[in-house]
Amino acid sequence: MLTYVNGEFYPADNAKISVRDRGFRLGDGAFETILIHAGMPYQLALHVERFKKSLKHLGIKSDTKKIPELVKKIIAKNKILDGFVRIAVTRGESGFGYSAKNVGSPTIVIETEKSTVKKNKPAKLWMSSYVKHPLPGKIIGNITSVLARIEAEESCFTDSLLLDAKGKICETSSANIFWFTGNKLYTPKSGMLEGTMRSAVIRLSPFPIMRGDFILADLKKADAVFITNVAWKILPVVELKPLGLKWKESKKTKILAQLLEEDINGMG
Amino acid sequence: MLTYVNGEFYPADNAKISVRDRGFRLGDGAFETILIHAGMPYQLALHVERFKKSLKHLGIKSDTKKIPELVKKIIAKNKILDGFVRIAVTRGESGFGYSAKNVGSPTIVIETEKSTVKKNKPAKLWMSSYVKHPLPGKIIGNITSVLARIEAEESCFTDSLLLDAKGKICETSSANIFWFTGNKLYTPKSGMLEGTMRSAVIRLSPFPIMRGDFILADLKKADAVFITNVAWKILPVVELKPLGLKWKESKKTKILAQLLEEDINGMG
Repeated sequence: MLTYVNGEFYPADNAKISVRDRGFRLGDGAFETILIHAGMPYQLALHVERFKKSLKHLGIKSDTKKIPELVKKIIAKNKILDGFVRIAVTRGESGFGYSAKNVGSPTIVIETEKSTVKKNKPAKLWMSSYVKHPLPGKIIGNITSVLARIEAEESCFTDSLLLDAKGKICETSSANIFWFTGNKLYTPKSGMLEGTMRSAVIRLSPFPIMRGDFILADLKKADAVFITNVAWKILPVVELKPLGLKWKESKKTKILAQLLEEDINGMG
Repeated sequence: MLTYVNGEFYPADNAKISVRDRGFRLGDGAFETILIHAGMPYQLALHVERFKKSLKHLGIKSDTKKIPELVKKIIAKNKILDGFVRIAVTRGESGFGYSAKNVGSPTIVIETEKSTVKKNKPAKLWMSSYVKHPLPGKIIGNITSVLARIEAEESCFTDSLLLDAKGKICETSSANIFWFTGNKLYTPKSGMLEGTMRSAVIRLSPFPIMRGDFILADLKKADAVFITNVAWKILPVVELKPLGLKWKESKKTKILAQLLEEDINGMG
């Protein structure tokens, strides 16, 4: 397995960056994780667009033009059929402190990972004790998601549901959330990362999409709930603790999952 | 110059970590920056105590017992008289995603930097457009401070003042804030990092300390303002833009700066 670091491919175990890199020092960078199916990156253009936005918000001037080519190159070199590509760009190397006055050129790292999981179990969600705060994109320095995920895993839950400071439903630590109430499909319109699988679901759904600001009382009315990300695709949620909410897997979720699989298969 | 990485000292330019390190991947770690004066670390025990708290909040089980010894060792090896030691501990290496189920052992990096600035100019502060959210310690993944500092530097200001979502004064991106109104010394009591220079000022001040929840209207009444961190020690603030607030350097601030210098000198 090879990893790309600043213009060169290295054996993954030898792919290293300086301890002075601001990604390592301060979480000062952005990343993307892209699904690979049958050797092809799914929704690559959408990832690159979002990545550009994250870097713009951070004020990191990195050339993103070569990314699509590099992504395809690393998939071919590593012979990945099913798995993921991860791209990270940081502001570069600097001294101690937050000052960005003397920073080197941006660091770029591109890695691949093979998919090991055939089928994910339905998700059990934990109500996070952390509060979701807005982030300017898919940022490395996002300790809330790290701690919310760990909080869930410590209690053997799949993931944690995050609300913002006003109690608005945002996302889970690692995924976007959707739910059905009747025939309509609900999902938060703000406060969450604009996930690429979320975009795919919105694009493919035959059910009317209701994007809005929702609270737990809205979720309590749901008939079925699912979460989405590039690793889990569409994952039904069967429980939300400690609120005592339980849901069954629904036919409508299965229809969406089927449409998504067809879209992913059709891509190649 | 040598840098310590996981048990070994390397020439600083060769001190590297894997791209899989969760510090680099997710800002998943904590750090400390300690002042060195006359070859001695100032308030080392206070830094180690805070570092332990940060790591505890993150749930990172790293042995901190050897840190004081390692700090003294690296100062001696690098012959640092005046400068800084930076310690970073991350959760270790893992695959893509937030899951912490399969993480290696924690990574520890200890570096030094020589002090290059003889005397800092008084600070001009910018009113940040970012909102300060609480963090569980001195965390690597703190993009708000990064962006707030950059925002200030882009307009040739020293640093940015951060308020929380309710308008409460917290800190600047890189320092704690104090101000005099009359003979009393004011500083936020929550929402900020508990800076070690802030602790020193509180410990040394002959002026009564008023810790509380303050808003900009309180700061407007100030006769003199200063900020504190290990690099700037006590730095007078002369301006806060775009609010049009200006302050002169005060005798009381100079008295405190003198007391702090004596404390730092006395340490050795």
